[in-house]
Amino acid sequence: VDEKWVVVAVSYSGNTEETVSAYREARDRSCRVFCVTTGGELGRISNAGYTQRIPEGLQPRAALPILLSVTMGLTERVLGLEPTDFGRVSENVQRNQEVWGSHIDRPETLASEIYGSVPLFLAQGHLVPVAYRAKCQFNENAKYSAFSLEMPEANHNEIEASVSYQRFAIRPVFLESSFQSERMSRRYEATRAVMSTERSMKLTIPSENRLDEMLSLTHYLDMVSLELALLHGVDPVGVDRISELKSRLAG
Amino acid sequence: VDEKWVVVAVSYSGNTEETVSAYREARDRSCRVFCVTTGGELGRISNAGYTQRIPEGLQPRAALPILLSVTMGLTERVLGLEPTDFGRVSENVQRNQEVWGSHIDRPETLASEIYGSVPLFLAQGHLVPVAYRAKCQFNENAKYSAFSLEMPEANHNEIEASVSYQRFAIRPVFLESSFQSERMSRRYEATRAVMSTERSMKLTIPSENRLDEMLSLTHYLDMVSLELALLHGVDPVGVDRISELKSRLAG
Repeated sequence: VDEKWVVVAVSYSGNTEETVSAYREARDRSCRVFCVTTGGELGRISNAGYTQRIPEGLQPRAALPILLSVTMGLTERVLGLEPTDFGRVSENVQRNQEVWGSHIDRPETLASEIYGSVPLFLAQGHLVPVAYRAKCQFNENAKYSAFSLEMPEANHNEIEASVSYQRFAIRPVFLESSFQSERMSRRYEATRAVMSTERSMKLTIPSENRLDEMLSLTHYLDMVSLELALLHGVDPVGVDRISELKSRLAG
Repeated sequence: VDEKWVVVAVSYSGNTEETVSAYREARDRSCRVFCVTTGGELGRISNAGYTQRIPEGLQPRAALPILLSVTMGLTERVLGLEPTDFGRVSENVQRNQEVWGSHIDRPETLASEIYGSVPLFLAQGHLVPVAYRAKCQFNENAKYSAFSLEMPEANHNEIEASVSYQRFAIRPVFLESSFQSERMSRRYEATRAVMSTERSMKLTIPSENRLDEMLSLTHYLDMVSLELALLHGVDPVGVDRISELKSRLAG
Protein backbone atom coordinates (compact mmCIF):
# COMPACT_ATOMS: atom_id res chain seq x y z
CA VAL A 1 0.00 0.00 0.00
CA ASP A 2 1.74 3.18 -1.20
CA GLU A 3 0.98 6.58 -2.74
CA LYS A 4 -0.64 4.89 -5.77
CA TRP A 5 -3.45 3.55 -3.54
CA VAL A 6 -6.83 5.05 -2.78
CA VAL A 7 -8.03 4.14 0.72
CA VAL A 8 -11.58 4.50 2.04
CA ALA A 9 -11.87 4.61 5.84
CA VAL A 10 -15.40 3.75 7.00
CA SER A 11 -16.50 3.98 10.62
CA TYR A 12 -20.03 4.91 11.60
CA SER A 13 -19.04 6.27 15.01
CA GLY A 14 -15.71 7.53 13.75
CA ASN A 15 -14.14 6.05 16.88
CA THR A 16 -13.43 2.47 15.78
CA GLU A 17 -9.88 1.97 17.00
CA GLU A 18 -8.73 -0.18 14.03
CA THR A 19 -10.18 2.24 11.44
CA VAL A 20 -8.67 5.34 13.02
CA SER A 21 -5.22 3.74 13.22
CA ALA A 22 -5.51 2.43 9.63
CA TYR A 23 -6.48 5.96 8.49
CA ARG A 24 -3.35 7.38 10.14
CA GLU A 25 -1.12 4.76 8.57
CA ALA A 26 -2.61 5.24 5.09
CA ARG A 27 -2.09 9.00 5.36
CA ASP A 28 1.51 8.48 6.49
CA ARG A 29 2.06 6.31 3.41
CA SER A 30 0.82 9.19 1.21
CA CYS A 31 -2.30 7.38 -0.01
CA ARG A 32 -5.30 9.44 -1.04
CA VAL A 33 -7.75 8.72 1.79
CA PHE A 34 -11.51 9.21 1.76
CA CYS A 35 -13.54 8.96 4.96
CA VAL A 36 -17.16 8.00 5.57
CA THR A 37 -18.34 8.71 9.11
CA THR A 38 -20.78 10.56 11.35
CA GLY A 39 -17.87 12.34 13.04
CA GLY A 40 -15.93 11.20 16.11
CA GLU A 41 -12.15 10.98 16.08
CA LEU A 42 -12.08 10.15 12.36
CA GLY A 43 -14.23 13.19 11.55
CA ARG A 44 -11.92 15.35 13.67
CA ILE A 45 -8.62 14.32 12.06
CA SER A 46 -9.75 13.73 8.45
CA ASN A 47 -9.58 16.15 5.54
CA ALA A 48 -13.08 17.69 5.31
CA GLY A 49 -12.90 17.91 1.51
CA TYR A 50 -12.48 14.14 1.28
CA THR A 51 -14.98 13.21 3.97
CA GLN A 52 -18.62 12.23 3.52
CA ARG A 53 -20.58 12.95 6.68
CA ILE A 54 -23.58 10.68 7.24
CA PRO A 55 -26.55 11.10 9.62
CA GLU A 56 -26.04 10.30 13.30
CA GLY A 57 -28.36 8.44 15.65
CA LEU A 58 -28.63 5.04 13.96
CA GLN A 59 -27.41 1.70 15.28
CA PRO A 60 -24.19 1.13 13.28
CA ARG A 61 -25.48 -2.26 12.11
CA ALA A 62 -28.70 -0.56 10.88
CA ALA A 63 -26.67 1.97 8.89
CA LEU A 64 -25.78 -0.59 6.21
CA PRO A 65 -27.89 0.98 3.41
CA ILE A 66 -26.40 4.43 3.85
CA LEU A 67 -22.83 3.16 4.35
CA LEU A 68 -23.14 0.92 1.31
CA SER A 69 -24.60 3.54 -1.02
CA VAL A 70 -21.90 6.08 -0.09
CA THR A 71 -18.92 3.71 -0.26
CA MET A 72 -20.11 1.97 -3.41
CA GLY A 73 -20.81 5.29 -5.11
CA LEU A 74 -17.33 6.47 -4.16
CA THR A 75 -15.67 3.26 -5.35
CA GLU A 76 -17.49 3.43 -8.67
CA ARG A 77 -16.31 7.01 -9.19
CA VAL A 78 -12.70 6.15 -8.35
CA LEU A 79 -12.70 3.11 -10.65
CA GLY A 80 -14.63 4.87 -13.43
CA LEU A 81 -17.50 2.35 -13.31
CA GLU A 82 -21.13 2.86 -14.25
CA PRO A 83 -22.80 4.26 -11.10
CA THR A 84 -25.38 2.03 -9.43
CA ASP A 85 -28.88 3.54 -9.24
CA PHE A 86 -29.61 3.12 -5.55
CA GLY A 87 -33.16 4.41 -5.94
CA ARG A 88 -33.84 1.45 -8.17
CA VAL A 89 -31.95 -0.96 -5.89
CA SER A 90 -34.07 0.23 -2.99
CA GLU A 91 -37.29 -0.27 -4.99
CA ASN A 92 -36.19 -3.78 -5.99
CA VAL A 93 -35.37 -4.75 -2.42
CA GLN A 94 -38.76 -3.46 -1.30
CA ARG A 95 -40.49 -5.32 -4.12
CA ASN A 96 -38.65 -8.53 -3.24
CA GLN A 97 -40.47 -8.40 0.11
CA GLU A 98 -43.59 -9.43 -1.77
CA VAL A 99 -42.38 -13.02 -1.94
CA TRP A 100 -42.18 -13.27 1.88
CA GLY A 101 -44.82 -15.83 2.79
CA SER A 102 -44.93 -17.39 -0.69
CA HIS A 103 -41.48 -18.17 -2.25
CA ILE A 104 -39.83 -17.84 1.15
CA ASP A 105 -41.23 -18.18 4.70
CA ARG A 106 -42.34 -15.05 6.50
CA PRO A 107 -39.52 -13.87 8.82
CA GLU A 108 -41.54 -14.72 11.96
CA THR A 109 -42.18 -18.22 10.60
CA LEU A 110 -38.50 -18.86 9.93
CA ALA A 111 -37.58 -17.38 13.32
CA SER A 112 -39.99 -19.82 15.06
CA GLU A 113 -38.59 -22.68 13.01
CA ILE A 114 -35.00 -21.79 13.97
CA TYR A 115 -35.69 -20.88 17.62
CA GLY A 116 -34.29 -23.62 19.84
CA SER A 117 -31.53 -24.55 17.39
CA VAL A 118 -28.26 -22.95 16.25
CA PRO A 119 -28.37 -21.86 12.59
CA LEU A 120 -25.29 -22.50 10.48
CA PHE A 121 -25.44 -20.36 7.34
CA LEU A 122 -23.68 -21.87 4.33
CA ALA A 123 -23.09 -19.75 1.23
CA GLN A 124 -20.88 -19.30 -1.80
CA GLY A 125 -19.43 -16.36 -3.74
CA HIS A 126 -21.31 -13.06 -3.33
CA LEU A 127 -23.59 -14.59 -0.66
CA VAL A 128 -20.67 -15.36 1.72
CA PRO A 129 -20.80 -11.85 3.28
CA VAL A 130 -24.61 -12.15 3.50
CA ALA A 131 -24.18 -15.37 5.53
CA TYR A 132 -21.60 -13.71 7.77
CA ARG A 133 -23.82 -10.64 8.27
CA ALA A 134 -26.72 -12.97 9.22
CA LYS A 135 -24.50 -14.67 11.82
CA CYS A 136 -23.55 -11.28 13.29
CA GLN A 137 -27.14 -9.99 13.29
CA PHE A 138 -28.36 -13.12 15.06
CA ASN A 139 -25.57 -12.54 17.60
CA GLU A 140 -26.09 -8.80 18.14
CA ASN A 141 -29.84 -8.37 17.64
CA ALA A 142 -31.08 -11.63 19.15
CA LYS A 143 -28.12 -12.39 21.51
CA TYR A 144 -28.25 -15.78 19.87
CA SER A 145 -25.60 -18.20 18.64
CA ALA A 146 -25.19 -18.64 14.89
CA PHE A 147 -22.30 -19.54 12.60
CA SER A 148 -21.45 -19.17 8.94
CA LEU A 149 -19.17 -21.09 6.59
CA GLU A 150 -18.12 -20.81 2.96
CA MET A 151 -19.03 -23.37 0.31
CA PRO A 152 -17.55 -25.49 -1.22
CA GLU A 153 -14.76 -25.38 1.39
CA ALA A 154 -17.26 -26.51 4.06
CA ASN A 155 -17.91 -29.69 2.07
CA HIS A 156 -14.45 -31.02 2.92
CA ASN A 157 -14.92 -31.14 6.67
CA GLU A 158 -18.22 -29.76 7.93
CA ILE A 159 -20.10 -32.56 6.20
CA GLU A 160 -18.48 -35.11 8.54
CA ALA A 161 -19.54 -33.03 11.56
CA SER A 162 -23.17 -33.10 10.44
CA VAL A 163 -23.49 -36.55 12.07
CA SER A 164 -23.61 -34.65 15.38
CA TYR A 165 -26.01 -31.86 14.30
CA GLN A 166 -29.14 -33.28 15.92
CA ARG A 167 -27.37 -33.84 19.20
CA PHE A 168 -26.27 -30.19 19.33
CA ALA A 169 -29.38 -28.70 17.72
CA ILE A 170 -27.40 -27.29 14.77
CA ARG A 171 -29.51 -26.47 11.71
CA PRO A 172 -27.77 -25.95 8.35
CA VAL A 173 -29.29 -23.06 6.41
CA PHE A 174 -28.14 -22.95 2.77
CA LEU A 175 -28.26 -19.52 1.14
CA GLU A 176 -28.52 -20.32 -2.55
CA SER A 177 -28.22 -17.89 -5.41
CA SER A 178 -30.40 -17.81 -8.53
CA PHE A 179 -27.15 -16.98 -10.35
CA GLN A 180 -25.04 -19.93 -9.21
CA SER A 181 -23.58 -22.36 -11.77
CA GLU A 182 -25.28 -25.67 -12.60
CA ARG A 183 -22.27 -27.39 -11.08
CA MET A 184 -22.65 -25.48 -7.81
CA SER A 185 -26.37 -26.27 -7.68
CA ARG A 186 -25.56 -29.96 -8.05
CA ARG A 187 -23.03 -29.63 -5.23
CA TYR A 188 -25.61 -27.99 -2.94
CA GLU A 189 -28.16 -30.66 -3.79
CA ALA A 190 -25.72 -33.50 -3.11
CA THR A 191 -24.64 -31.88 0.18
CA ARG A 192 -28.25 -31.53 1.31
CA ALA A 193 -28.94 -35.13 0.28
CA VAL A 194 -26.01 -36.38 2.41
CA MET A 195 -27.33 -34.29 5.32
CA SER A 196 -30.89 -35.46 4.66
CA THR A 197 -31.65 -36.31 8.29
CA GLU A 198 -30.34 -32.97 9.58
CA ARG A 199 -33.45 -30.92 8.74
CA SER A 200 -31.47 -28.55 6.55
CA MET A 201 -33.10 -25.45 5.12
CA LYS A 202 -32.65 -23.74 1.78
CA LEU A 203 -33.23 -20.00 1.29
CA THR A 204 -33.48 -18.27 -2.10
CA ILE A 205 -35.02 -14.97 -3.10
CA PRO A 206 -35.82 -14.38 -6.78
CA SER A 207 -33.88 -11.24 -7.81
CA GLU A 208 -32.96 -9.14 -10.81
CA ASN A 209 -29.21 -9.24 -10.23
CA ARG A 210 -26.56 -10.17 -7.65
CA LEU A 211 -26.67 -6.88 -5.75
CA ASP A 212 -30.47 -7.04 -5.35
CA GLU A 213 -30.12 -10.63 -4.26
CA MET A 214 -27.48 -9.80 -1.64
CA LEU A 215 -29.51 -6.92 -0.23
CA SER A 216 -32.86 -8.69 -0.36
CA LEU A 217 -31.50 -11.69 1.52
CA THR A 218 -29.76 -9.36 3.99
CA HIS A 219 -32.99 -7.45 4.57
CA TYR A 220 -34.89 -10.70 5.03
CA LEU A 221 -32.36 -12.23 7.45
CA ASP A 222 -32.10 -8.96 9.41
CA MET A 223 -35.89 -9.18 9.92
CA VAL A 224 -35.56 -12.83 10.98
CA SER A 225 -32.98 -11.79 13.58
CA LEU A 226 -35.40 -9.19 14.98
CA GLU A 227 -38.21 -11.75 15.19
CA LEU A 228 -35.78 -14.05 16.94
CA ALA A 229 -34.97 -11.28 19.45
CA LEU A 230 -38.70 -11.13 20.27
CA LEU A 231 -38.88 -14.90 20.78
CA HIS A 232 -35.68 -14.80 22.82
CA GLY A 233 -37.14 -11.99 24.96
CA VAL A 234 -34.18 -9.64 24.46
CA ASP A 235 -33.77 -6.04 23.39
CA PRO A 236 -32.31 -6.00 19.86
CA VAL A 237 -30.78 -2.53 20.33
CA GLY A 238 -28.78 -3.07 23.53
CA VAL A 239 -25.26 -4.48 23.40
CA ASP A 240 -24.53 -4.93 27.10
CA ARG A 241 -21.63 -7.32 26.69
CA ILE A 242 -19.87 -5.24 24.02
CA SER A 243 -20.25 -2.20 26.32
CA GLU A 244 -18.91 -4.17 29.27
CA LEU A 245 -15.93 -5.30 27.18
CA LYS A 246 -15.20 -1.73 26.08
CA SER A 247 -15.35 -0.40 29.63
CA ARG A 248 -13.06 -3.21 30.84
CA LEU A 249 -10.57 -2.39 28.08
CA ALA A 250 -10.72 1.33 28.84
CA GLY A 251 -10.55 0.87 32.62
CA VAL B 1 -1.48 -13.40 -11.61
CA ASP B 2 0.82 -13.32 -14.65
CA GLU B 3 4.20 -14.62 -15.86
CA LYS B 4 5.97 -12.81 -13.01
CA TRP B 5 4.28 -15.09 -10.46
CA VAL B 6 5.50 -18.34 -8.96
CA VAL B 7 2.63 -20.71 -8.18
CA VAL B 8 2.81 -23.78 -5.94
CA ALA B 9 0.06 -26.37 -6.52
CA VAL B 10 -0.34 -28.68 -3.53
CA SER B 11 -2.68 -31.67 -3.54
CA TYR B 12 -1.91 -34.83 -1.60
CA SER B 13 -3.98 -37.09 -3.86
CA GLY B 14 -3.22 -35.02 -6.96
CA ASN B 15 -6.92 -35.25 -7.82
CA THR B 16 -8.34 -32.25 -5.95
CA GLU B 17 -10.56 -30.64 -8.58
CA GLU B 18 -9.82 -27.02 -7.56
CA THR B 19 -6.04 -27.56 -7.43
CA VAL B 20 -5.88 -29.29 -10.82
CA SER B 21 -7.92 -26.54 -12.51
CA ALA B 22 -5.85 -23.82 -10.78
CA TYR B 23 -2.67 -25.57 -12.00
CA ARG B 24 -3.95 -25.49 -15.58
CA GLU B 25 -4.92 -21.84 -15.35
CA ALA B 26 -1.57 -20.82 -13.83
CA ARG B 27 0.28 -22.68 -16.62
CA ASP B 28 -1.89 -21.00 -19.26
CA ARG B 29 -0.96 -17.64 -17.73
CA SER B 30 2.74 -18.53 -18.13
CA CYS B 31 3.50 -18.64 -14.42
CA ARG B 32 6.32 -20.84 -13.18
CA VAL B 33 4.41 -23.63 -11.42
CA PHE B 34 5.77 -26.06 -8.84
CA CYS B 35 3.74 -29.09 -7.76
CA VAL B 36 3.72 -31.09 -4.53
CA THR B 37 1.75 -34.33 -4.74
CA THR B 38 1.80 -38.12 -4.46
CA GLY B 39 0.71 -38.41 -8.12
CA GLY B 40 -2.82 -38.56 -9.49
CA GLU B 41 -3.98 -36.19 -12.24
CA LEU B 42 -1.64 -33.43 -11.06
CA GLY B 43 1.35 -35.81 -11.13
CA ARG B 44 0.35 -36.89 -14.65
CA ILE B 45 0.08 -33.42 -16.21
CA SER B 46 2.78 -31.55 -14.28
CA ASN B 47 6.39 -30.96 -15.33
CA ALA B 48 8.42 -33.66 -13.58
CA GLY B 49 11.39 -31.33 -13.09
CA TYR B 50 9.25 -28.96 -11.06
CA THR B 51 7.33 -31.58 -9.10
CA GLN B 52 8.14 -32.90 -5.65
CA ARG B 53 6.69 -36.39 -5.21
CA ILE B 54 5.79 -37.28 -1.63
CA PRO B 55 5.03 -40.70 -0.07
CA GLU B 56 1.60 -42.23 -0.67
CA GLY B 57 -0.61 -44.05 1.80
CA LEU B 58 -1.25 -41.36 4.42
CA GLN B 59 -4.55 -39.70 5.31
CA PRO B 60 -4.22 -36.28 3.60
CA ARG B 61 -4.93 -34.54 6.91
CA ALA B 62 -2.13 -36.57 8.53
CA ALA B 63 0.32 -35.49 5.82
CA LEU B 64 0.62 -31.97 7.25
CA PRO B 65 4.26 -32.32 8.43
CA ILE B 66 5.51 -33.54 5.06
CA LEU B 67 3.40 -31.08 3.03
CA LEU B 68 4.51 -28.22 5.23
CA SER B 69 8.22 -29.02 5.18
CA VAL B 70 8.23 -29.37 1.38
CA THR B 71 6.15 -26.25 0.59
CA MET B 72 7.89 -24.11 3.19
CA GLY B 73 11.31 -25.23 1.99
CA LEU B 74 10.30 -24.39 -1.57
CA THR B 75 8.88 -21.00 -0.61
CA GLU B 76 12.01 -20.11 1.32
CA ARG B 77 14.19 -21.00 -1.69
CA VAL B 78 12.03 -18.94 -4.07
CA LEU B 79 12.01 -15.93 -1.76
CA GLY B 80 15.69 -16.28 -0.82
CA LEU B 81 14.93 -16.68 2.88
CA GLU B 82 16.96 -18.50 5.51
CA PRO B 83 15.82 -22.16 5.31
CA THR B 84 13.97 -23.52 8.35
CA ASP B 85 15.65 -26.46 10.04
CA PHE B 86 12.79 -28.94 10.17
CA GLY B 87 14.83 -31.46 12.13
CA ARG B 88 15.01 -28.92 14.91
CA VAL B 89 11.34 -27.95 14.52
CA SER B 90 10.38 -31.59 14.83
CA GLU B 91 12.52 -31.97 17.98
CA ASN B 92 10.95 -28.87 19.51
CA VAL B 93 7.42 -30.07 18.81
CA GLN B 94 8.27 -33.43 20.38
CA ARG B 95 9.81 -31.74 23.40
CA ASN B 96 6.76 -29.50 23.80
CA GLN B 97 4.79 -32.69 24.47
CA GLU B 98 6.49 -32.80 27.84
CA VAL B 99 4.17 -30.09 29.17
CA TRP B 100 1.07 -32.19 28.42
CA GLY B 101 -0.41 -32.93 31.81
CA SER B 102 1.39 -30.06 33.56
CA HIS B 103 1.17 -26.67 31.73
CA ILE B 104 -1.70 -27.95 29.60
CA ASP B 105 -4.21 -30.77 30.19
CA ARG B 106 -3.45 -34.18 28.75
CA PRO B 107 -5.32 -34.58 25.40
CA GLU B 108 -7.66 -37.24 26.86
CA THR B 109 -8.48 -34.93 29.78
CA LEU B 110 -9.38 -32.03 27.50
CA ALA B 111 -11.36 -34.36 25.21
CA SER B 112 -13.44 -35.55 28.22
CA GLU B 113 -13.94 -31.95 29.32
CA ILE B 114 -15.14 -30.91 25.85
CA TYR B 115 -17.21 -34.04 25.11
CA GLY B 116 -20.89 -33.14 25.27
CA SER B 117 -20.33 -29.53 24.22
CA VAL B 118 -19.42 -27.76 20.97
CA PRO B 119 -15.96 -26.16 21.10
CA LEU B 120 -15.56 -22.72 19.58
CA PHE B 121 -11.86 -22.01 18.98
CA LEU B 122 -10.93 -18.32 19.15
CA ALA B 123 -7.50 -17.20 18.00
CA GLN B 124 -5.54 -14.30 16.63
CA GLY B 125 -2.73 -13.82 14.08
CA HIS B 126 -0.60 -16.89 13.41
CA LEU B 127 -2.90 -19.06 15.57
CA VAL B 128 -5.98 -18.42 13.35
CA PRO B 129 -5.08 -21.30 10.97
CA VAL B 130 -4.37 -23.50 14.01
CA ALA B 131 -7.91 -22.80 15.28
CA TYR B 132 -9.37 -23.55 11.84
CA ARG B 133 -7.35 -26.76 11.55
CA ALA B 134 -8.63 -27.82 15.00
CA LYS B 135 -12.22 -27.23 13.87
CA CYS B 136 -11.64 -29.37 10.76
CA GLN B 137 -9.88 -32.15 12.69
CA PHE B 138 -12.72 -32.31 15.22
CA ASN B 139 -15.10 -32.53 12.23
CA GLU B 140 -13.20 -35.14 10.23
CA ASN B 141 -11.51 -37.27 12.90
CA ALA B 142 -14.23 -37.19 15.56
CA LYS B 143 -17.30 -36.51 13.32
CA TYR B 144 -17.98 -33.80 15.83
CA SER B 145 -19.18 -30.19 15.53
CA ALA B 146 -16.70 -27.42 16.23
CA PHE B 147 -16.25 -23.85 15.04
CA SER B 148 -13.49 -21.29 14.87
CA LEU B 149 -13.45 -17.50 14.78
CA GLU B 150 -10.81 -14.81 14.53
CA MET B 151 -10.04 -12.33 17.30
CA PRO B 152 -10.51 -9.41 17.79
CA GLU B 153 -13.21 -9.44 15.08
CA ALA B 154 -15.22 -11.96 17.15
CA ASN B 155 -15.37 -9.42 19.98
CA HIS B 156 -17.75 -7.22 18.02
CA ASN B 157 -20.58 -9.73 17.69
CA GLU B 158 -19.81 -13.16 19.13
CA ILE B 159 -19.60 -11.74 22.61
CA GLU B 160 -23.34 -10.87 22.51
CA ALA B 161 -24.14 -14.45 21.44
CA SER B 162 -22.32 -15.83 24.46
CA VAL B 163 -25.50 -15.21 26.49
CA SER B 164 -26.87 -18.32 24.77
CA TYR B 165 -23.76 -20.54 25.10
CA GLN B 166 -24.96 -22.61 28.05
CA ARG B 167 -28.28 -23.30 26.40
CA PHE B 168 -26.54 -24.67 23.28
CA ALA B 169 -23.60 -26.27 25.07
CA ILE B 170 -21.07 -24.05 23.28
CA ARG B 171 -17.65 -23.84 24.98
CA PRO B 172 -15.28 -21.03 24.00
CA VAL B 173 -11.68 -22.25 23.77
CA PHE B 174 -9.14 -19.42 23.53
CA LEU B 175 -5.85 -20.30 21.83
CA GLU B 176 -3.45 -17.75 23.23
CA SER B 177 0.08 -17.10 22.07
CA SER B 178 3.11 -16.51 24.28
CA PHE B 179 4.08 -13.93 21.64
CA GLN B 180 0.90 -11.83 21.65
CA SER B 181 1.03 -8.13 22.54
CA GLU B 182 0.18 -6.84 26.01
CA ARG B 183 -2.84 -5.12 24.48
CA MET B 184 -4.10 -8.37 22.97
CA SER B 185 -3.61 -10.19 26.27
CA ARG B 186 -5.72 -7.53 28.01
CA ARG B 187 -8.37 -7.98 25.32
CA TYR B 188 -8.46 -11.76 25.82
CA GLU B 189 -8.64 -11.31 29.58
CA ALA B 190 -11.51 -8.80 29.32
CA THR B 191 -13.36 -11.06 26.87
CA ARG B 192 -13.03 -14.04 29.18
CA ALA B 193 -14.17 -11.89 32.11
CA VAL B 194 -17.33 -10.84 30.23
CA MET B 195 -17.97 -14.50 29.38
CA SER B 196 -17.17 -15.56 32.96
CA THR B 197 -20.25 -17.79 33.34
CA GLU B 198 -19.61 -19.58 30.03
CA ARG B 199 -16.91 -21.97 31.32
CA SER B 200 -14.41 -20.72 28.78
CA MET B 201 -11.05 -22.42 28.40
CA LYS B 202 -7.60 -21.02 27.64
CA LEU B 203 -4.87 -23.04 25.91
CA THR B 204 -1.22 -22.01 25.66
CA ILE B 205 1.91 -24.05 25.00
CA PRO B 206 5.28 -22.56 25.96
CA SER B 207 7.36 -22.46 22.75
CA GLU B 208 10.63 -21.19 21.34
CA ASN B 209 9.09 -19.30 18.40
CA ARG B 210 5.83 -18.86 16.47
CA LEU B 211 6.33 -21.83 14.14
CA ASP B 212 6.99 -24.19 17.06
CA GLU B 213 3.94 -22.76 18.80
CA MET B 214 1.70 -23.28 15.76
CA LEU B 215 2.88 -26.85 15.24
CA SER B 216 2.88 -27.79 18.94
CA LEU B 217 -0.69 -26.57 19.39
CA THR B 218 -1.71 -28.28 16.14
CA HIS B 219 -0.14 -31.54 17.30
CA TYR B 220 -1.86 -31.22 20.66
CA LEU B 221 -5.30 -30.43 19.22
CA ASP B 222 -4.97 -33.21 16.62
CA MET B 223 -4.44 -35.61 19.53
CA VAL B 224 -7.46 -34.15 21.34
CA SER B 225 -9.57 -34.78 18.21
CA LEU B 226 -8.43 -38.44 18.18
CA GLU B 227 -9.31 -38.85 21.86
CA LEU B 228 -12.68 -37.30 21.10
CA ALA B 229 -13.21 -39.82 18.27
CA LEU B 230 -12.69 -42.59 20.87
CA LEU B 231 -15.25 -41.02 23.23
CA HIS B 232 -17.65 -40.46 20.32
CA GLY B 233 -17.21 -44.11 19.28
CA VAL B 234 -16.27 -43.32 15.67
CA ASP B 235 -13.44 -44.33 13.36
CA PRO B 236 -11.13 -41.32 12.92
CA VAL B 237 -9.90 -42.56 9.52
CA GLY B 238 -13.20 -43.08 7.71
CA VAL B 239 -14.90 -40.19 5.91
CA ASP B 240 -18.19 -41.79 4.89
CA ARG B 241 -20.06 -38.56 4.23
CA ILE B 242 -17.29 -37.01 2.12
CA SER B 243 -17.15 -40.25 0.10
CA GLU B 244 -20.93 -40.25 -0.30
CA LEU B 245 -20.82 -36.63 -1.47
CA LYS B 246 -18.09 -37.42 -4.01
CA SER B 247 -19.99 -40.37 -5.40
CA ARG B 248 -23.18 -38.31 -5.65
CA LEU B 249 -21.26 -35.59 -7.52
CA ALA B 250 -19.62 -38.13 -9.83
CA GLY B 251 -22.86 -40.10 -10.45
